[in-house]
Amino acid sequence: MLTAPSAAKTMRALRKSEPAPGFTATELPVPAIGPTDVLIRVRKVGLCGTDLHIYGWDQWAQRRIKPPLTIGHEFMGTVAEVGAAVRAVVPGDRVSAEGHLACGVCLLCRTGEAHICEHVKIIGVDTDGAFADYLVMPEANVWKLDPAIPDAWAAVFDPLGNAVHTVMAAGVSTKSVAITGVGSIGLMAIPVARAAGASAVYAIDVNPAKLELAGRVGADAVFDARDPNLVDEILKRTGGDGVDVLLEMSGNGAAIDAGLAMVRNGGRAALLGIPSNDVQINLAERIIFKGLTVLGINGRKMFETWYQTQALVKSGRVDLGPIITHELPFEAYDDAFGLMQSGVAAKVVLDVA
Amino acid sequence: MLTAPSAAKTMRALRKSEPAPGFTATELPVPAIGPTDVLIRVRKVGLCGTDLHIYGWDQWAQRRIKPPLTIGHEFMGTVAEVGAAVRAVVPGDRVSAEGHLACGVCLLCRTGEAHICEHVKIIGVDTDGAFADYLVMPEANVWKLDPAIPDAWAAVFDPLGNAVHTVMAAGVSTKSVAITGVGSIGLMAIPVARAAGASAVYAIDVNPAKLELAGRVGADAVFDARDPNLVDEILKRTGGDGVDVLLEMSGNGAAIDAGLAMVRNGGRAALLGIPSNDVQINLAERIIFKGLTVLGINGRKMFETWYQTQALVKSGRVDLGPIITHELPFEAYDDAFGLMQSGVAAKVVLDVA
Amino acid sequence: MLTAPSAAKTMRALRKSEPAPGFTATELPVPAIGPTDVLIRVRKVGLCGTDLHIYGWDQWAQRRIKPPLTIGHEFMGTVAEVGAAVRAVVPGDRVSAEGHLACGVCLLCRTGEAHICEHVKIIGVDTDGAFADYLVMPEANVWKLDPAIPDAWAAVFDPLGNAVHTVMAAGVSTKSVAITGVGSIGLMAIPVARAAGASAVYAIDVNPAKLELAGRVGADAVFDARDPNLVDEILKRTGGDGVDVLLEMSGNGAAIDAGLAMVRNGGRAALLGIPSNDVQINLAERIIFKGLTVLGINGRKMFETWYQTQALVKSGRVDLGPIITHELPFEAYDDAFGLMQSGVAAKVVLDVA
Amino acid sequence: MLTAPSAAKTMRALRKSEPAPGFTATELPVPAIGPTDVLIRVRKVGLCGTDLHIYGWDQWAQRRIKPPLTIGHEFMGTVAEVGAAVRAVVPGDRVSAEGHLACGVCLLCRTGEAHICEHVKIIGVDTDGAFADYLVMPEANVWKLDPAIPDAWAAVFDPLGNAVHTVMAAGVSTKSVAITGVGSIGLMAIPVARAAGASAVYAIDVNPAKLELAGRVGADAVFDARDPNLVDEILKRTGGDGVDVLLEMSGNGAAIDAGLAMVRNGGRAALLGIPSNDVQINLAERIIFKGLTVLGINGRKMFETWYQTQALVKSGRVDLGPIITHELPFEAYDDAFGLMQSGVAAKVVLDVA
Repeated sequence: MLTAPSAAKTMRALRKSEPAPGFTATELPVPAIGPTDVLIRVRKVGLCGTDLHIYGWDQWAQRRIKPPLTIGHEFMGTVAEVGAAVRAVVPGDRVSAEGHLACGVCLLCRTGEAHICEHVKIIGVDTDGAFADYLVMPEANVWKLDPAIPDAWAAVFDPLGNAVHTVMAAGVSTKSVAITGVGSIGLMAIPVARAAGASAVYAIDVNPAKLELAGRVGADAVFDARDPNLVDEILKRTGGDGVDVLLEMSGNGAAIDAGLAMVRNGGRAALLGIPSNDVQINLAERIIFKGLTVLGINGRKMFETWYQTQALVKSGRVDLGPIITHELPFEAYDDAFGLMQSGVAAKVVLDVA
Repeated sequence: MLTAPSAAKTMRALRKSEPAPGFTATELPVPAIGPTDVLIRVRKVGLCGTDLHIYGWDQWAQRRIKPPLTIGHEFMGTVAEVGAAVRAVVPGDRVSAEGHLACGVCLLCRTGEAHICEHVKIIGVDTDGAFADYLVMPEANVWKLDPAIPDAWAAVFDPLGNAVHTVMAAGVSTKSVAITGVGSIGLMAIPVARAAGASAVYAIDVNPAKLELAGRVGADAVFDARDPNLVDEILKRTGGDGVDVLLEMSGNGAAIDAGLAMVRNGGRAALLGIPSNDVQINLAERIIFKGLTVLGINGRKMFETWYQTQALVKSGRVDLGPIITHELPFEAYDDAFGLMQSGVAAKVVLDVA
Repeated sequence: MLTAPSAAKTMRALRKSEPAPGFTATELPVPAIGPTDVLIRVRKVGLCGTDLHIYGWDQWAQRRIKPPLTIGHEFMGTVAEVGAAVRAVVPGDRVSAEGHLACGVCLLCRTGEAHICEHVKIIGVDTDGAFADYLVMPEANVWKLDPAIPDAWAAVFDPLGNAVHTVMAAGVSTKSVAITGVGSIGLMAIPVARAAGASAVYAIDVNPAKLELAGRVGADAVFDARDPNLVDEILKRTGGDGVDVLLEMSGNGAAIDAGLAMVRNGGRAALLGIPSNDVQINLAERIIFKGLTVLGINGRKMFETWYQTQALVKSGRVDLGPIITHELPFEAYDDAFGLMQSGVAAKVVLDVA
Repeated sequence: MLTAPSAAKTMRALRKSEPAPGFTATELPVPAIGPTDVLIRVRKVGLCGTDLHIYGWDQWAQRRIKPPLTIGHEFMGTVAEVGAAVRAVVPGDRVSAEGHLACGVCLLCRTGEAHICEHVKIIGVDTDGAFADYLVMPEANVWKLDPAIPDAWAAVFDPLGNAVHTVMAAGVSTKSVAITGVGSIGLMAIPVARAAGASAVYAIDVNPAKLELAGRVGADAVFDARDPNLVDEILKRTGGDGVDVLLEMSGNGAAIDAGLAMVRNGGRAALLGIPSNDVQINLAERIIFKGLTVLGINGRKMFETWYQTQALVKSGRVDLGPIITHELPFEAYDDAFGLMQSGVAAKVVLDVA
């Protein structure tokens, strides 16, 4: 059970304690900071599918996670303490942070592409994460929050940033867009794409509740991915040409094939969803003859995506309200994972403090 | 006076008959078409500042215009007749057309840049234009109108296309945008920029009525160009950085200087407004040290801009209603030019048929 | 047997006469031209792998080709006659031509992307081709040759254009480049990439003769595709990062996998080689996590690629001499196909007149 | 007079000691380093026009420079000592460094555009520079040199980087390029542009010696900027279209006007040369109607440009030999400035140790 910190010296943390399913609520020392670090009092955290993989201890988790580890990478909080060399934030500042810890010295880090750093570590996956009362982050990763951003939204800037990075890499201004897979990131991509200038957004999934929600957050039309006429329907709505842009957020092989089939010649496809196995692709028909541009999308640009995300939210045209379906106390984490597993929840936020 | 055509063989036309101010209403033979041409029954035309220059016979007009010439280049109508080799339209189709007659064989024409063809001719300027009952256009220039586009809006796809080309060349998705000069194209650029994804739009002009209209069509804030604190105000609203994008639509030297001063380092400035004289620019401070990208904008991309314009209007997020301030009968053309000269009108449309 | 035309009215043509392997030499009427057409006296033709597929009558050919059909799409010749509306060439001009007949009215054709026209027809595949004494081409497809371009090189501007389009779409300036598959187009891509600014070019194939030729035309290093240390070797030569750019010209699944593995995070892969079947791809590891950009490449840009090709050849930095390994008389076409099938030849040119 | 350091604790330094023309050779303490700093034993330095402005104490220098200040920003050397947190270099490493000290926390710094940081400081201009035995640099600015780079070339990576950044921002692959102004950076831009893929390079200047040198380092043709037929000559060599790309490196108003006049419609102009006053530009004819893209260029991209520069030099296709016209001992700095002022020298390098 999670209890309030017995003193300023210890804190609650949700951990993968051993190589087996489930998490353990533990009491740990509050971590110490170095000269370029920021200690953050965590206030709200978001639950991600990745956390669910770690909870369930699937094959990916068994390969990647080295217990013991505090999990969680979506969060917001308040600066509690700063190292001597920290310049841009002070105690009391509301902050979120980029969870990808880039090495800072590789080719990618030195050319504005730290989000695909060759030596990246991810909080809550490779190092201790955010499901705790306190978290240490390098100043370089900290993002000071604009007062206009609500706390619960700030807690999910990580997945919202995934959606924004995908949308902006694809380029949607005046374009028609199909989104395959409307889990929480796919759902976020709908208002993001519209606010970023998409002229039409089509949402595709197998889950009727998610499709209904997709319509509520701005999809012009929604489609069951199993509809045998799916591609024809999309072609009909786009004058026979196909959509300008595909945002692939399912990681499902059949959806990827259908998605590529519905993009017009010369169109763009941004792939964010992560297939768990190899995917069979008819490269000739789906990509080469069509002159498609296919973009692999990882993380969020540091920090171009964060500025874009802030601008979108501040413009008032992206509403996460309907997508954050549940907000529960930190202690109710087991219920929260249950809601996610059942497919009832879109995005779940836990209140830590 | 303009009267209805006495027979199918003749038509009304508004012409610059001689090298002097004013226009003459004339009766002319309906023009004949070649195998790749389309004869269009003109139904509505838009009045442009260029027409006003020709009307007033200023220095530019004296250099460029060779009377006699039927004027006008903004229009929509119905296909009346097609040449033997025409494939994409049939009589009865509602159409507008690109008024830039590109040569088709130069480097630009053969690389998708026909809008800056080295040998371009413009209808109503270099060849007979649209202020007439009938107009001949090459099929390559004709644009079939989507049923969702209202007639009066279709009549001004030419200037709307200028706005769209400027906005899309600059790239506004998630960006803050300043527009210097909100004549009719600057006004159109406001809803276009918002629909194309701008996160904030600031309008700048000296005309209070235009600024009021700018606010009504979606500007987040409007500014008097003569305000000595103008640049500081813009910096304040953009966190001290400056706007991401400038859309220059005034052609005024002082506005260009202020506009460039308010763009952030690394920003983009798209220049559409045409200065009548040389402009003094502090290249070092305004462009070079800031790492700015400055884009000269001419016409509309053929036909990428037309597809974008269609998508924007069909998405329902661009409303030209408040910008087309006056719609008058063809015969009232003198009143129409008066409305334009007085600065009362934004965009004026004449009903030809 | 091919014989000289018995009169100005008839001509020799190499045809697929019936749905079976092989070609037939035939005598046919010289085709008539329309007002926008150009009649070309063919002088030299290039042999392509596509011709070999048609010759051998494989599954692809059986699906796509409707005999009878004159084959061939790589050629150069002299303008013999022009239609009444033709403006840019006159009889006697040395020309080649783009073999993709674009529809001219679809979205792609109207936005500078005619090379991926939705309704494209290809000469020698869908309509009568260039292996004949005369050929009719629309003026819009004809390319007037600069005097500095040798005849035999002009005859292979089609595949050279494939190489240029692939290189330029990928963007190689100052970049390291791996080319998987050095058939004739892959070989051409080597000097093209170097002339276009590549800092290093690595060639990969299974054919030692082609690899030897690759070294002669400018590859910095060549590798056997079956070398188990191939990817490690490339990583070693690129400071551990991988190449900036992959040009995939083999269409082979294993080569595509290895090629994607050797591209650095954030790199670009241009796919020109056409796999005959679906390809299994580890999208997560090969494309998504790496943030790769993958480009499907088809044909040549009309006519941006042609201008680039001309500039490259005129700059004197692309030498096709070693790549055009054989030049034979038109009558020796059976020998020519034999040379190609045996793998001895890189590019074979036939002299028609 | 400059003498060798009397001990490890002091060093020679060339300084602007007071607000007046000239420099003073001084003995100073070797500076101390912080945890993220690197102490560099300077071995070679390059002389820049900026140093000459400071030497001569012109208006710009009087406004910008606050004596006392050690000058110099082009250099290479050996790491002498590293701070506790330094990870990427160790004592003994051969290094150069980016002389722009970016703030690290502004919008530009956080979006991969630190070269146009809003709060940038430049060594040798705003803080103590490289004309000394030792120099302290933040690790983030240090560039480890590839063994293939000769010392004297490494000493001028700063201006070479200006040339590379300008060339790469403009994009020259397969393009024709005009360079207005062939001082040392303009000269460097010639082999850089060719190695980066330019198909033709035209050099324009008023100094015959520089033009002669331009021809020696790879210009296809050179032109006197005062030739009244200059623009026509360039048009003639480019088929009447004009050059694809202008690299403006003179900062001279007349050269800028002529340069813009000789770029083709749709072309690109990169401005690196810094005019000392406002420049009069016919925006309508020179930029807007032509649909030009004009790029302000400042510094070098950190560190994309450095990687590109390294790749170009390692490819063996950029030879700085003829451009580094003089190499003198550190003590001969007065002679060195004299050579620069006389226009005899292109690039001068001083040997410090």
